[in-house]
This record gives sequence, C-alpha cells and structure tokens, in this order.
Amino acid sequence: MKTLYKFLLAPGPTPLPEEVRLEGAREITHHKHPVAKKMFRKVTDDMKWLLGTKYDSYLLASSGSGAMETAVQNLINTGDKVIIINAGNFGGRWVKINKAYGANVVEIKKDWGDMATPAELEAVLKANPDTVAVFCQLSETSTGACSDTAGFAKIVSKTNAILVVDGVSGIGVVPLKMDEWNVDVVVGGSQKGMMLPPGMAFICMNEKAWKLVENNKQHKFYFDLKLFQKKLVDNETPWTPPIGIIYQADKAFEMMKAEGLENVWARSTKLAKGIRTAMKAMNLELFAKCPGDAVTTVKIPDGVDGKKVTSVIRDKYGITIAGGQGDFSGKIFRLGHMGYMDMYSELACLAALELTFKELGHKFEIGSGVSAFMKEMAQE
Amino acid sequence: MKTLYKFLLAPGPTPLPEEVRLEGAREITHHKHPVAKKMFRKVTDDMKWLLGTKYDSYLLASSGSGAMETAVQNLINTGDKVIIINAGNFGGRWVKINKAYGANVVEIKKDWGDMATPAELEAVLKANPDTVAVFCQLSETSTGACSDTAGFAKIVSKTNAILVVDGVSGIGVVPLKMDEWNVDVVVGGSQKGMMLPPGMAFICMNEKAWKLVENNKQHKFYFDLKLFQKKLVDNETPWTPPIGIIYQADKAFEMMKAEGLENVWARSTKLAKGIRTAMKAMNLELFAKCPGDAVTTVKIPDGVDGKKVTSVIRDKYGITIAGGQGDFSGKIFRLGHMGYMDMYSELACLAALELTFKELGHKFEIGSGVSAFMKEMAQE
Repeated sequence: MKTLYKFLLAPGPTPLPEEVRLEGAREITHHKHPVAKKMFRKVTDDMKWLLGTKYDSYLLASSGSGAMETAVQNLINTGDKVIIINAGNFGGRWVKINKAYGANVVEIKKDWGDMATPAELEAVLKANPDTVAVFCQLSETSTGACSDTAGFAKIVSKTNAILVVDGVSGIGVVPLKMDEWNVDVVVGGSQKGMMLPPGMAFICMNEKAWKLVENNKQHKFYFDLKLFQKKLVDNETPWTPPIGIIYQADKAFEMMKAEGLENVWARSTKLAKGIRTAMKAMNLELFAKCPGDAVTTVKIPDGVDGKKVTSVIRDKYGITIAGGQGDFSGKIFRLGHMGYMDMYSELACLAALELTFKELGHKFEIGSGVSAFMKEMAQE
Repeated sequence: MKTLYKFLLAPGPTPLPEEVRLEGAREITHHKHPVAKKMFRKVTDDMKWLLGTKYDSYLLASSGSGAMETAVQNLINTGDKVIIINAGNFGGRWVKINKAYGANVVEIKKDWGDMATPAELEAVLKANPDTVAVFCQLSETSTGACSDTAGFAKIVSKTNAILVVDGVSGIGVVPLKMDEWNVDVVVGGSQKGMMLPPGMAFICMNEKAWKLVENNKQHKFYFDLKLFQKKLVDNETPWTPPIGIIYQADKAFEMMKAEGLENVWARSTKLAKGIRTAMKAMNLELFAKCPGDAVTTVKIPDGVDGKKVTSVIRDKYGITIAGGQGDFSGKIFRLGHMGYMDMYSELACLAALELTFKELGHKFEIGSGVSAFMKEMAQE
C-alpha cells in the first residue's frame, strides 16, 4: 500500500501543531522590545502552570541536555556526593555530567527497562547521609519505564539533599506537580510534550536548591543561573533568547490550556494503553518491566532484523519511530505518546507497523493491532 | 505621519527573509532521519563557504555567547595566559568568560569606540611570550568600531598562540577569510548576518587550536567539542540540534550564494557608508573613531533624551534600533547593516530617525538624511 502522509512518532522531537508552525513563520521581534518582554513574562508564567510550581523557570537557548548541565554546573561542587538513579541512557547522562564536574557519584543502577523504587532510594540515602543531591528521570526516554518521581521526592524532601528531576520527555506528558510533591529542581526541553521545535530548554528550582547555587564554585558563564536571575527581573535573559520558540510556546500553551493539563496527561495514558494492547495483539513483547505512559518500548521479536523495522517503516511508510539506544540498538523500538500526538497518528503508526512486521516475517494476524487499539479507544 | 510597517534594524537579531520564515513553518524532521542528516551535512559544508575555511563548523543549540563559552571551555586551562582585546561590551564578555574559567587575563583595553591595532597586539604578545590564546572581535557590536582581524591574525600566526575571533555580528557582514588570514578559531551565532532566528551558534577551528582541545582539562559536557567531533562523522550532534534553524539556514545560504559573498559584504559597506553620510547631514556625530560596516553607532546630541530616541522611533514609527550598552546607555544609538537589510529598510529607518529627532528638538533640516543617503546609493 503506497502512502502519502508522513507522521513523526518518535519520543522527541515531536510533531508541531499548525498554530505553532505558523508562528514559526513570523518576523522576529527584538527580545528587548516591550512586546517581546511581555511575551517572555507570559510564557515564563505559563511554565509555572505546566510544572505545578510558584517558582520561575529560567528559559535557556539550548537542548534539554544543556538544562541538565545547567543543573549540575550550578548545584554541584567538585567532590559533592550525589545519588543517581541510573536505569537507562538519560540516567547515564546524569552520571556522565556529574562525573564531568567532579562529583562523587553513588549510582543506583538498574537494568534498562527496570526502575529503582522509592524504598531502594531511601536505603541508599540512609547509607549516604552526606548526599547533596539525588538525580532521577520523570520518564526515562531510552526505556519507557515508569518512574515514581512523587515517591522519590517524598523520601528526599525529608533529608538535606535536593531532588533534581530530568523532565525532558515527561513534562506535559505524565503528571508532575513540582511544589505539591516537593521536587526541588526540574529541567526540561521544548521538543517533547511542549509541542515545540528543539532549541529551548528550562530549569526551575525552589529555595532549597537556590541555596546550593549561592555556594557553588564551578567555572561557568553561559548557564550561570545567577546571571539569569538578575536579568529575569526585567523579563530578559543574559544572552539572546530563542525568541521564535518563545512566541511558539505561547501558542502551544494556549492549546494545552484549552485541553486542560489533566486531559493532556490522560491523552498520553490512553494512547499508551492502546499501543501496549496493540503490541500484545501483534505478538510483540513490551520491553519495560513497568511501562510508563510517555514512551512505549517494544522488543524486536526473534528472527526480525531490528534495524530494518525502523528503516522500512520510515522509508516505505513515512513513519518516523525510534530504535533502541546504546546496547539496545536493533533490539527494541520506541514509540512516543507525547505532545502533538493523538489517536489518528498512533493508528497510522500501528497500520505501518503491521505492514512492516508482515514484510519482515513476523507472525501475527494483520488487523489485530489496529483492532485492539480501537477497542481501547472506544472505552470511556 | 502615521505608519503601518515595522522594520527591525538593530544589530541583531535581524529580520528574516520570507523564504527563511516560511521554512520556519514546516513540520519537524527528526534529526536522525537520513534526509535531516543530509541537510545537516549540507549546512555544515555551507559554513565552510561562509567562513572561508576547509574546516568543519560545529553547530550548537545556543546563542552566540554559548559559542564564546565553548571556545574558552575547550581551549583554555585554568592559569593559562590569554590576551584579550577589550574595546567594548563583547571584548568585555571575552574577559568575563576567561576569568570565569580561571585564565590569567592580559587585557589590551581601549575606550569604547576605539580599537587596538595589530602593532599594539604585537607589542603585548612580545611582552607575554607564554600567551596561549588571543581573543578579539571581528566586529564589536557595542561600539561599531572597525577591527583589523586579518592584521591580528598575521601577528598571532607567527607565535605559538592561537587567535580566537568572535564573529557573531561580523560573519556574513564584513570580510572574514579564516584560512587565508590564518585565523585559528571562529565563533558565531545565527541571528545576525546569517538571516536566521536566534538559537543556533557555531564554532570552527583549525589543527593548531584542536591541539589545545586535546589537552584541555576544564569540566564540561554540553559544549564538549570532543563529543561533537565524534558525532559529526555521522552528521549528528551529541544532543538534539535546533533542526528547524538548520533547515532555515539552507534557505538563507541559498539566498546568500545567489547574491555572492563579496556582494553581501559590499551591501553592508554601501549601506553603512550611506548611513554615516546621512548622520552627518543630520548634524549627528558618529561614535566610533574608526567606524566598521556592520554597525553604525551615533552619539545622542546634547539636549536630546537618548532613551526617548529608541522608544519614540519604536512606539510611534515601528522601527526597532538599539541603544547603547553599559555606560553608554542613553548616550548613543546603534543601527545594523547586517543580514536581511537593504536600501529600503535603512531608508525607512532614516525617515523615522528624522521625524523622531525633529520631535525631540534636535536641529537639522528635514529630508537631509534621506537625501544624503540616496546620493550615496546612486553612486556606482
């Protein structure tokens, strides 16, 4: 079956709504123009709504990894003890950044697809009372495993340590209530649940975390949050902000607010549930032990060339999904349920997956995936 | 006179051509899609043409200041001696970043509006033979003063030191021939001469500079060029690139190539000359001792409120220009001749400047500015 449409269903970057795309075609407004500063304030305020916090976010011109580095570079001194929940590529990224800055890293290492529990964290924290910070993922994009961030926060908030959450692929996708949960620091990027192009990132922190910033001695400049703090009073950033994406963010927030944040989260939950059911119906096995709702990871069945799954579905059917990262390259594939994705795009993806797996010799009944998915969609 | 149009004539961010803006409205292509990687390679190759070099540029998701930090963080070890030509806000930024990373800074400090000469640099270099790097601006955006970067390079290339050029507001505006001049490192940003939105920056370096990268010990991650080098082989970046701007860059390069790089530079030269002539005709005094062609800076005449110049022209006439930075806030104003600016936009700016200065009580003959400007434009 020859197709015309293209769909992007990777766990980021994600598709852009027309409203956001058209905003991308507008002329640049100088970032120091009063109108641009007003927009900057509006979007910064909307970030509070998105993260469930009273604290200001600092908007960075960088990818999400830049925001991760911002956290470490501003919060962690060389020699500081940190605990990192490392259950995938992005947990591993926390380890790499912390080591790059000379932190004394205690890892809670889990197999990919698995995730540490709050109880495990509590035990490690008790054994390491001098811990300065705990790092985790709201959603581990490389494995799709669920993460009990609220549970981690409950444990960490009883100690002197702060909890730093990488929310890159989870924000605007799965629940996050920064202040209610007592999360101290959240970092994220534009190109996942926020329905924006890549190029903007952010960091938000409470007073407990800001105290560490005051005492931080790392060399830094571009990501120096004290410089950002000084400029935010005037609704400015110390360096030229990605003003185009800030205007686009206003449109995206408008859409998310119209849908309602709880409904945005519920959409991911429903789509993820539908996709999980469809995978099973297609004789495919889920990879994550406890699958989260932002990303579904699926094992490549025996006898199928995993690299071909992502290339055939892309080149023949116009669907971009993601393969496995690191050691799991060619062994799993990953589907996003985040940002501007809905029943139609996931259904398109399933249709293409059915044809692709048929072609690659996997045994299952054509139509079983889309049928199982639709049964879930029809549930109230 | 009530106006409808809006023009952006600040020395960055600069206006976007329609072709570039429309590209900003396109759907996101995943950065690991073969089509996106091909585009990434194409734009990276076009950077060679723009900078006059055989070396690859590394494209960063950041503002130009992020690229400046990338240079320091990858090239300068704590305690290294560096010479910085500091003749304005951005020379001062080189000082701040180098100090933030513990460099031993020797400043060649000049008054704002003035610029160091190659002979001065030669003397300071001779007195400091252990210098690791020299930092300068191709165009000092805060003052508009000319800078003999080719002359600096001639001096530095005879020594063991490297020359690091901040080309943010000069690249694609005034001549830069990286390899021919023996410039070792160039950094720049998207939002000036490249006719792109802010959010992409780049760094390009030759083998002499790469040797310093190999021996660098600064803590780093997001801007770690060794990570970028490894990924460039696959036409990728270690973190999600600003893929939208990369696609827009392709359109901008297409336009610049059709115009011809020498003609792009000549356009700035001609516009700058016209504006300088117009300013004199309006009884206004230029600020820079030796004005460059990327930015014209003009003194606010006695009796005129400098803050009002930029606000009246903006709020009443729809023209965004820039005021002075630092100590020169309210004392000068700045006009760009870079990127997507031409005779029409500069003429619009002049028309609005005439009405604004009339309103603010400055004595000059209405029509004198636009008339003087057109006499220059009519020259072959």
